[in-house]
Amino acid sequence: MTVSPASWVRDPAFARDQPFGPQTLPYGVVDAGDGPRVAVRLGDHALPLRSVAHDLGDVADLVSGSSLDPLLAATRVEWSALRARLVDLVAQTAPPTGATLVPLTDVRMALPFTVGDYVDFYSSRYHAENVGRIMRPDTDPLLPNWTHLPVGYHGRSGTVVVSGTDIERPDGQRRGSSGPQFGPSGRLDIEAEVGFVCGGPVARRVPTSSAAEHIFGVVLVNDWSARDIQGWEYQPLGPFLGKSFATSVSAWITPLDALAMARVPAADVGHPRLPYLVEDTPWGLDLRLVVEWNGTVVSRPRFSDMSYTCAQQLAHMTVNGATVRPGDLFASGTVSGPDKSRLGCFLELSWGGKEEITLADGVTRTFLEDGDEVVITATAPGEDGSVVGIAPVTGRVVPAV
Amino acid sequence: MTVSPASWVRDPAFARDQPFGPQTLPYGVVDAGDGPRVAVRLGDHALPLRSVAHDLGDVADLVSGSSLDPLLAATRVEWSALRARLVDLVAQTAPPTGATLVPLTDVRMALPFTVGDYVDFYSSRYHAENVGRIMRPDTDPLLPNWTHLPVGYHGRSGTVVVSGTDIERPDGQRRGSSGPQFGPSGRLDIEAEVGFVCGGPVARRVPTSSAAEHIFGVVLVNDWSARDIQGWEYQPLGPFLGKSFATSVSAWITPLDALAMARVPAADVGHPRLPYLVEDTPWGLDLRLVVEWNGTVVSRPRFSDMSYTCAQQLAHMTVNGATVRPGDLFASGTVSGPDKSRLGCFLELSWGGKEEITLADGVTRTFLEDGDEVVITATAPGEDGSVVGIAPVTGRVVPAV
Repeated sequence: MTVSPASWVRDPAFARDQPFGPQTLPYGVVDAGDGPRVAVRLGDHALPLRSVAHDLGDVADLVSGSSLDPLLAATRVEWSALRARLVDLVAQTAPPTGATLVPLTDVRMALPFTVGDYVDFYSSRYHAENVGRIMRPDTDPLLPNWTHLPVGYHGRSGTVVVSGTDIERPDGQRRGSSGPQFGPSGRLDIEAEVGFVCGGPVARRVPTSSAAEHIFGVVLVNDWSARDIQGWEYQPLGPFLGKSFATSVSAWITPLDALAMARVPAADVGHPRLPYLVEDTPWGLDLRLVVEWNGTVVSRPRFSDMSYTCAQQLAHMTVNGATVRPGDLFASGTVSGPDKSRLGCFLELSWGGKEEITLADGVTRTFLEDGDEVVITATAPGEDGSVVGIAPVTGRVVPAV
Repeated sequence: MTVSPASWVRDPAFARDQPFGPQTLPYGVVDAGDGPRVAVRLGDHALPLRSVAHDLGDVADLVSGSSLDPLLAATRVEWSALRARLVDLVAQTAPPTGATLVPLTDVRMALPFTVGDYVDFYSSRYHAENVGRIMRPDTDPLLPNWTHLPVGYHGRSGTVVVSGTDIERPDGQRRGSSGPQFGPSGRLDIEAEVGFVCGGPVARRVPTSSAAEHIFGVVLVNDWSARDIQGWEYQPLGPFLGKSFATSVSAWITPLDALAMARVPAADVGHPRLPYLVEDTPWGLDLRLVVEWNGTVVSRPRFSDMSYTCAQQLAHMTVNGATVRPGDLFASGTVSGPDKSRLGCFLELSWGGKEEITLADGVTRTFLEDGDEVVITATAPGEDGSVVGIAPVTGRVVPAV
């Protein structure tokens, strides 16, 4: 892919050394006051695709509406065709007839697709071991199944929200000295994760070799977690209200095609994988995450530390005959690494609330306070030294009602 | 409600002493070869509602399509208005113009609504204690949280299927003597449950007193469970592939209005409920379930044995700020009672596979074999001695692919 330096898109952020240059081209849904419209992000601008429908050929219909649902329900052939047309279109020296670039500051972002099932995995060995040590100190931190399968569970799809949505502190039950207490969570946390948006035909038993036919693209996920609610409720059936109040996702989906240069093997699990989890090409991704708490960088998790890839997760999720549908979303689990600079949640960073985290203004934290804002960003290596961005996921905590 | 003995509906099953008489009037989606149509069940016939739209007034539009989704998205005022019109309509002595009754033997049933989030609770103390004794014999069978909150988890909405759908035996990992084994489940089970179909406006923090505004009606649920897959995978995040391959629901939804006479208090939990779980009127339901395995009745669970009601479950599910949407489905958890004649799954009936169950033909079973069929039915007391039916949920096991 070569992009003319004389592209009609006059935005300094639309450059190959910037995360949303022509090498990325993520899709989202913007509302500039005239209703939601599918758009592609060019630097700090949005290009509503209906405005250039005549240049998009027979895939124009997939992106002329108010949601990415029709595009997700299409196929990889169509996804690639659309991307090829957009690559050409943004490289032109003159703007296509009708093209209207809208500054991102002038639009409201919408959740870009209808979430089908939402599954959350737990595929960082570092995170699983740390949580085990903190929450179950008397047992082996890693349970015996962990190195054999990507542990996961279903989350609540109805409370997946777009980046920027305020997060109301949840109420719930937590353990008390004389029976459970009820009230606002006192241990509100984040989980920095990478999410995969599914598309293509409804399928079952998706082999790792077919992952690209069923994964459209990548978002960042903040799996907000109320640790006190979770700690009281989660046995024996897993997390429920401690997670179901809100899950934030990036407003823009970076297509899988943009991440071809970022592919790396998954971290080793210490023994050969069962056959259905073997990959013929590696599906890990070299994404560098950055977690900012009220503007202070508190962690730089690396997605290459994960032990299970999206292809393995999808193969596992469907190996029992369960279907995957366009709009299904699955997340990696918290991205943590071997040292404190790479931990993906505050439970780990504060070691269960015991160690304070100091922010740039000298204020200390263990868990989130009302008014706090968390921003998670990520980049990956692109072609020819370019950088590919995954759009940020942000959220601000507001008091319980 | 009085129904004329001279009703134009000439079907001996459409009688007050029959489960689908005029006191019940459940809704479903039938396909008689001309595409799916919303219908009401009258005895052993379906009345497609589009055929009587002119008699339904301003609620006709809600039931003139191919899915119950528009009806679920309406309000209790409209649900009650529709039911009142149908009660009048079926009591007429002459058929309404255009009314076409279709024998159920001539239609294929469709999943009647789009499932939003699917939540499965665990609200039978007998079931929870039995499972605890079987799966965690070294610990207290009931975990400390159980009597304080309705334990639950999210299931997979994309694999909820309509009654009658064949159930393919799932593949998966299970515990082996030298590491996990992979292959078809050898411990395929049922869970006899009652499901609640949500409707009305999107809502958060639904108090128990508002349950009827957000619960449209009742189905039976068979939460098919692969116990060997579940036993290996479920810690620490709960059931996943052991449950996600298929969940069957009744083809007809019995409206909550039909169950007014069946209301009973929930079973005691041994201490006062937290305020958000207190009910001003009891929301338990006196449903009598019958579980048939290849035609042999193996259990008669009673829904009045449950410790948490649908109103308490909905209040809990939304107390953290999570929304409930039309089309969300939540199930009670396995309905079990204090003795062997009232257990709702084969794990309990066979006590972990140790005790054989003898069917009428002398064949013995512990878990499901290929070709086995399970039928779950239920009835409740209606007005004036009538009986209200919840439509059966059936499924036959077919071999793994």
